[in-house]
Amino acid sequence: MKLYTEMSREELEQELAVAKDEYRKFQDMDLHLDMSRGKPCTEQLDLSMGMMDSLDSDADLRCEDGTDCRNYGVLDGIREARVLIGDMMENNPDNIILFGNSSLNVMFDTISRAMTHGIMGNTPWCKLPRVKFLCPVPGYDRHFAITEYFGIEMIPIPMSSTGPDMDMIERLVSEDETIKGIWCVPKYSNPQGYSYSDETVRRFARLRPAAPDFRIFWDNAYGIHHLYDIDQDYLIEILAECKRVGNPDLVYKFASTSKITFPGSGIAAMATSPNNLEDIRRHLKMQTIGHDKVNQLRHVRFFGDIYGMTQHMRKHAEIIRPKFEAVESIFSENLGGTGAGDWTCPKGGYFISFDSMPGCAKKIVAMAKKAGVTLTGAGATWPYGRDPLDCNIRIAPTYPTLEDLKLAAKLFTDCVKIVTLKKLLEQAS
Amino acid sequence: MKLYTEMSREELEQELAVAKDEYRKFQDMDLHLDMSRGKPCTEQLDLSMGMMDSLDSDADLRCEDGTDCRNYGVLDGIREARVLIGDMMENNPDNIILFGNSSLNVMFDTISRAMTHGIMGNTPWCKLPRVKFLCPVPGYDRHFAITEYFGIEMIPIPMSSTGPDMDMIERLVSEDETIKGIWCVPKYSNPQGYSYSDETVRRFARLRPAAPDFRIFWDNAYGIHHLYDIDQDYLIEILAECKRVGNPDLVYKFASTSKITFPGSGIAAMATSPNNLEDIRRHLKMQTIGHDKVNQLRHVRFFGDIYGMTQHMRKHAEIIRPKFEAVESIFSENLGGTGAGDWTCPKGGYFISFDSMPGCAKKIVAMAKKAGVTLTGAGATWPYGRDPLDCNIRIAPTYPTLEDLKLAAKLFTDCVKIVTLKKLLEQAS
Repeated sequence: MKLYTEMSREELEQELAVAKDEYRKFQDMDLHLDMSRGKPCTEQLDLSMGMMDSLDSDADLRCEDGTDCRNYGVLDGIREARVLIGDMMENNPDNIILFGNSSLNVMFDTISRAMTHGIMGNTPWCKLPRVKFLCPVPGYDRHFAITEYFGIEMIPIPMSSTGPDMDMIERLVSEDETIKGIWCVPKYSNPQGYSYSDETVRRFARLRPAAPDFRIFWDNAYGIHHLYDIDQDYLIEILAECKRVGNPDLVYKFASTSKITFPGSGIAAMATSPNNLEDIRRHLKMQTIGHDKVNQLRHVRFFGDIYGMTQHMRKHAEIIRPKFEAVESIFSENLGGTGAGDWTCPKGGYFISFDSMPGCAKKIVAMAKKAGVTLTGAGATWPYGRDPLDCNIRIAPTYPTLEDLKLAAKLFTDCVKIVTLKKLLEQAS
Repeated sequence: MKLYTEMSREELEQELAVAKDEYRKFQDMDLHLDMSRGKPCTEQLDLSMGMMDSLDSDADLRCEDGTDCRNYGVLDGIREARVLIGDMMENNPDNIILFGNSSLNVMFDTISRAMTHGIMGNTPWCKLPRVKFLCPVPGYDRHFAITEYFGIEMIPIPMSSTGPDMDMIERLVSEDETIKGIWCVPKYSNPQGYSYSDETVRRFARLRPAAPDFRIFWDNAYGIHHLYDIDQDYLIEILAECKRVGNPDLVYKFASTSKITFPGSGIAAMATSPNNLEDIRRHLKMQTIGHDKVNQLRHVRFFGDIYGMTQHMRKHAEIIRPKFEAVESIFSENLGGTGAGDWTCPKGGYFISFDSMPGCAKKIVAMAKKAGVTLTGAGATWPYGRDPLDCNIRIAPTYPTLEDLKLAAKLFTDCVKIVTLKKLLEQAS
C-alpha cells in the first residue's frame, strides 16, 4: 500500500469512498461487540471450572500446618498458597501477603494507607501540600484513576519498547521530593505489551529518590501471561535486584490470579521487603482478620504447583494467541504501508496499542461505537484522560469470539482510514 | 452462697483456701484453651460443608440475569445474593452493596473514605483538627481499634440492657459537631448480648446531630444469630425507621455471613440510603472492579432463600446453646450469691459479659492464662484498652468443646474467687 501522505487528492478521495462503503456494510450488520476491557472470554473461564471440584464437601479444608481454612485468621495468607504465588511472582513466600480478589484494591489501599498514615513513619501524604506520581504513558486507566481520586498530581513519562524514559525518571525523582511514586506495568505493559529491558529494571532498582517514602508500584499483572511457549519476554525480578543494590524497600510488587483462574474470584498478592511488610501488617491487622483462605486453598489444590499453573497458562495462550494474530494480520493487511497508524505486536498480556495520526483517536473510537464496536475510550491511557496528541487507542482482543473479533478489527481499520483520509483531505484543501 | 462482703475474715480465708486448691488442680492439667475470640467451633463449620458442593465443574455459573459470575464486574454484587442478604438484613436488595469476606474491612474502608474524601461532600475528616466517635461500653475491641488507628477520639457511652445511654448521646451529638459517628452492635451486642430496645432504636433514628456527616455505624453482626427458636430478641429495623422520620441518610448498616457459613469466606454487606450508596459507589468503583461473585452465587445456591438460612442458623444454635448454658450454670453455681461478679445471659450472639468487682479483671485474666485458659484481654472492651474500673471480661464460649468449656468456666470462677477474696482480705487488713 502507498503512504497516504504521498497520495494525490484523487487517490485519497477514492480510498475514502471505498472505506466508507465498507463502513456502511458494518453499519447494516447491527453489531454489538465489546473490545473495551481486558476481559477473558468464556472458553478461557471454562479452563478453570475444574477448580470448582478441587474442594467438595468431603474435602479436608485444613492446610499443611493444620490450620482450618474455614475459620478466622492467618493475615498473610496460608503457607502453601504463598508458596504457589511466590513461584508465580518469583519471590520468597515469606515476602508475600495474600489479599482478596483484586490487586487493584490492594494498590488502592496502599495509596490510601500512605495518604492517612504515611509510609514507614513518614508524613501522611494527606498532610502534604503536594504529592506527585510519575505515570508512564500510555498506561493503565485504573491506575491513573486511583491517583487522580486521591488528588495526586500525575506527570506523564514517555514509554518506549524498552520501558519508560529512565533519564527523565532518574532526574525527576532525585530532584523532587514531592514525587512519591510511579505506576509500572513492567511486563507485557498495558496497553503496549512492552516489557522493560534489563537496563530499565536495573536502573529502576538503582533509583535514589529524594523522597524517603518514594515507592515503585510494580504491577506485574501479566507476569506469566505469555502468548508463545519459547518466544517469551523475560523480566529481571525487581525485588531481588533492589536487594542486591542496597535499595530493598523501594518497590511494592503486585500480582493476582485474576486472568489465570476467574477475574472476580482470584487471589491478589503483594510482594515487598520485610520492612515494608511489617509496615503494612501493622495497618492491615486493623482492617481485617484475614482474607478468603478457602479460596486460597482451592487454588492450591487445583494447580498443585507452578508447573500446573504454567500448563494452565498454555491453554489460555492457545485460546487468545489466534485473536492477537488475527488483529495484527487484519491491521497489517488493511493499514500496512499507509502510515495511518502504528500498532504493537506483543508476546503476552491482554492488549494491543494502536497509535493513529495525531488528532484522530477520539473520532476513530466514536465511529467504531456508531457501528456497534465499543473500544476503550480514546484518552483513557493517559492521566486525566487527556492524550495530548489524541492518537492512542487500546485494543483488547481477548473477550470477543475470533469471528466477531475479525469483524471488529476490520471495522476498526475502516474507521481509521475514514478519519485519517478526511483529515488529510481537510489539510490539503 | 453468702455474699463475700458479709463474710468474716475467717470465712473469706477458708473460701480462698478452697479456691486455691481447685485452681492448683487446673494447673496440673496442662490446659491450652482459647476463649478469647468469637470463633465458631469445628462442628459449626462442618454445617456449611455442603456449600462446597453447591458449585461444581458442571454448574452454570451465570446468575439469573445471565451475568457470568466468573468474569469481572457487578460492583454492587449479584442480584440474587442481594435478595438473600436483603432478607437476612431486612433491607431492600436495592439498598445493599455486597463486599468481600469481611464486614470489619467494610467498616474500616468506610472510615478511611471519610478520612480522605469526606462523606457526601463534607470536609474530609483528615482535614479537621478533631474528630470524635461515641463508643458504647463495653464494646467490640476491633471497632475501637479502627477509630484509634485513624486518630479519632473516643468517648465511652455507658450501656444498659436497653442499649447505650440515649440521653447522653442525644445531648452530645446535638452539641458537638466534631462528633462524627457512633459504633453500635445493636442486637446481641458484643460483649453483653444486649439488644437495643424499641425506644432506643427510635431515639437513634431521631437523632439530630450537629455534624451533617455524622453517621451511626450499625454493625448488626448477630442479626439472625439466635440461641433459641421462640425466645428471640427483636430489633426495629433502623433504616426503615430513619426513613419514616425523615432522617434517611443517618445510618450505615453492616452485616456478614461470617458466622453463618465460614468466617474467612463469607459475604460482607452494607445497607444504607440511596444517597449514601451513591456517595460510596463513586469511591468504590476506583477501589475495585467488583467482589467475588462466584462466592456470592455459592451462598445463594447453598441456602436457596432466607428460610434455608434460618434453618441453618437453628443448627448453629443447637451446637452453641449448650455452651452458653453450661457457662451460665457454672457461673451461677460457683459465684451465685457471692457478689463476686455479674454476668449476662444473652439469647443470641457470641459472647457473655462478666463484670468482676472493680480492680479485679486484669488479675483474673492473668490467673486464667497462667493455668492455660486464654481470655480476651481485660480492658479490650473499652476504647484504648482502658477499662476505668478494671472489671469487664468478655467470655467467648463457642470455640472450645463443651467439655473443655466446662473446665475453662470452672477455672474462671476459681480465678474470680481467688482474686476477689484476696482483694477483700487486703482491704480488711
